[in-house]
Amino acid sequence: MSTVKKEVTAIAKAAQEAYRSAINTPSDVKDAALREMAQALLQAQDAIMRANRKDIAKAKAAGRPRAFIERLVLDEKRICQMADALLDIAALHDPVDEVLTSVRRPNGLWIHKVRASIGVIAIIYESRPNVTSDCVGLCFKSGNAVILRGGSEALNSNTAIFSVLRGVLGTYGIPEAMISMVSSQGHAAVTELLKLNEYIDLVMPRGGEALINAVVRSSRIPVIKHYKGICHVYVDEWADLNMAQKICFNAKVQRPGVCNAMECMLVHRDVAARFLPGMIKQFMQAGVEIRGDELTRRLAKSRIKKATAADYSTEFLDLILSVKVVGSLQEAVAHINRFGSHHSDAIVTDNYQSSLEFMRRVDSACVYTNASTRFTDGGQFGMGAEIGISTDKLHTRGPMALEELTTYKYMIFGNGQVRQ
Amino acid sequence: MSTVKKEVTAIAKAAQEAYRSAINTPSDVKDAALREMAQALLQAQDAIMRANRKDIAKAKAAGRPRAFIERLVLDEKRICQMADALLDIAALHDPVDEVLTSVRRPNGLWIHKVRASIGVIAIIYESRPNVTSDCVGLCFKSGNAVILRGGSEALNSNTAIFSVLRGVLGTYGIPEAMISMVSSQGHAAVTELLKLNEYIDLVMPRGGEALINAVVRSSRIPVIKHYKGICHVYVDEWADLNMAQKICFNAKVQRPGVCNAMECMLVHRDVAARFLPGMIKQFMQAGVEIRGDELTRRLAKSRIKKATAADYSTEFLDLILSVKVVGSLQEAVAHINRFGSHHSDAIVTDNYQSSLEFMRRVDSACVYTNASTRFTDGGQFGMGAEIGISTDKLHTRGPMALEELTTYKYMIFGNGQVRQ
Repeated sequence: MSTVKKEVTAIAKAAQEAYRSAINTPSDVKDAALREMAQALLQAQDAIMRANRKDIAKAKAAGRPRAFIERLVLDEKRICQMADALLDIAALHDPVDEVLTSVRRPNGLWIHKVRASIGVIAIIYESRPNVTSDCVGLCFKSGNAVILRGGSEALNSNTAIFSVLRGVLGTYGIPEAMISMVSSQGHAAVTELLKLNEYIDLVMPRGGEALINAVVRSSRIPVIKHYKGICHVYVDEWADLNMAQKICFNAKVQRPGVCNAMECMLVHRDVAARFLPGMIKQFMQAGVEIRGDELTRRLAKSRIKKATAADYSTEFLDLILSVKVVGSLQEAVAHINRFGSHHSDAIVTDNYQSSLEFMRRVDSACVYTNASTRFTDGGQFGMGAEIGISTDKLHTRGPMALEELTTYKYMIFGNGQVRQ
Repeated sequence: MSTVKKEVTAIAKAAQEAYRSAINTPSDVKDAALREMAQALLQAQDAIMRANRKDIAKAKAAGRPRAFIERLVLDEKRICQMADALLDIAALHDPVDEVLTSVRRPNGLWIHKVRASIGVIAIIYESRPNVTSDCVGLCFKSGNAVILRGGSEALNSNTAIFSVLRGVLGTYGIPEAMISMVSSQGHAAVTELLKLNEYIDLVMPRGGEALINAVVRSSRIPVIKHYKGICHVYVDEWADLNMAQKICFNAKVQRPGVCNAMECMLVHRDVAARFLPGMIKQFMQAGVEIRGDELTRRLAKSRIKKATAADYSTEFLDLILSVKVVGSLQEAVAHINRFGSHHSDAIVTDNYQSSLEFMRRVDSACVYTNASTRFTDGGQFGMGAEIGISTDKLHTRGPMALEELTTYKYMIFGNGQVRQ
């Protein structure tokens, strides 16, 4: 067995044992540990920032782009946000052991469907070091053991944060292997990790499409995918055009670099002439590059690029927007189901039928009537912290928080029943 | 593109389109179609039995074992059971569009979590032709399009049943591609099918471990696995030994060939001498072969085989039972979590603490106190029909019926909200 394989297997095995032995940890003990983790992060802030400066120096020396370095930086404010997130998680309701449904069968069997922790969760992530503490907080609170595998670009920062968080567990009699980190760098460690379906119950890649695809291709462990967001706003023929303008502008411009921002705007033909010229002007004044279909280009007051099929399938994550005029609600829905990423899509309309049709027929995790797609977010949904937005249909869909990090089991209470 | 690839791709694409266009089909239309399918099966029973006789003749000519042929046979009684199952499914509550939770956020957004169909489900199965109609019934009622891929040994029977069921759809204005069958034989068709994650949302293999493993290895589509059941009954030191004897006997003998039958009996050391001799005698009189550990062999009145580690990991599906004496509840739980298949496990005890510990610490889909493991079954749980018992932890666990064939989506109703 290679050294990497040995290391990774030992970590996964210990995590599985820790999960099993920690299964009865009371909520108040978990919450106290989370609050102490928050405290410990603040106390260690100088050490964390020192470690972070090493990563930044390395990234600069490697000539990484500014946005990359920006994501990597940990300052006092960001460490404070990490600590606050842990306090928020401590304050949330513990999902474990909630009875979801129960039924008393005619033969007297009393069947409970009970929420339970999943087990061991591996998180494979890139760049942002705050992911380390967010994932630890959510997995720990939901009773799961977590195995962290961050990117090499943030190794020093991640290790510093990890050590602080793990250091708290002993005081509370919680096995240290509830929080682990794979430190061997290189792809081999990930490859070995993804083979360990005997010990690991779930893998979540957090990062770009290339990372997610690589994990999906080689994993023997179930994966929950947080793919890209190609989100649409459809301005219906019955839209309040003033409202539509505000929603579209917000969905594109308020924070263009995130997965719930609008990438494509669809406009019904009957309102295109009234809506598009003003809307496009507002976008262009905000620095948005428009790529439109034929009719959009005719209606725009200035020269705009032609939208290609590739544009309709692209998550720009930038101030770029594709625009298309459609002949009907049905055409809008078909476009969204074909080119979208089943993440978040909105209709603006005052027509009851249009809303109902859109909400039912658009096959996305989150569908909106008369609101910005930017609300797809665990915090905005009232779930507290979030670990990502699932674009999968199975297990969980949309924002993932504590409940989404659980499964269930059936507990059946009898008094001697046998099957006839 | 090969002919097989073309055929399979065309089927999957048509299924995806059918699912989308049938999304608004009302419950009463679906139920009427299901009732007519039941009727049509009964009317076509001669044709179905004729097709079935061809499969049986082929199996006999190939020298297949008796049990194999027995599973393949369709007689009037079995066709009647298939029709009854469809009527039962028609009578169940339609899970689609149920609002699971809803919340009104401070900004006025009204967020609904709504149960939704998954989309296109492929079922890859072996031998029993009644799987064809059960799967069609459950997938159709839950709003999913289904793609069937049965084994070549039942091709004539499956095709006959499939044609009858699909033939009903036109009358109700439902697209025929809601129910499809891949008829090209050979492994290539399955391999191609499992690549079509663009059109197919879920694959369920129904059959032996070899089939499931083959699907898991090559699928790009999420798989829900119905693996083997290595089920345990643990007779605690505080057990009512009379009740324990009844439960253990039922769990092993009532129907040994199914996944929820007991394969291993664990007995606490302090009651072993009182419990084991009589229990083993009863088992042996019923033709059960016992394989025991050292202490069990000493306590048995007759010679019994030695249990190996391999025995503890084996799903016998037969009148064979491994037996082990344990020193504590903790040892029993550790054995079950290590050697079991996380399916169904029971404790017999009159001690409150023992029950609570066992129910929480055993990491299985179904855990029982004082009842036979044989109750793990959709019908017994009051779910109506079932499509299998999931041994996965994600998405769904334990008996799978209509609700387990759905996902959810968020529908968010606003009046112009934008994100600050």
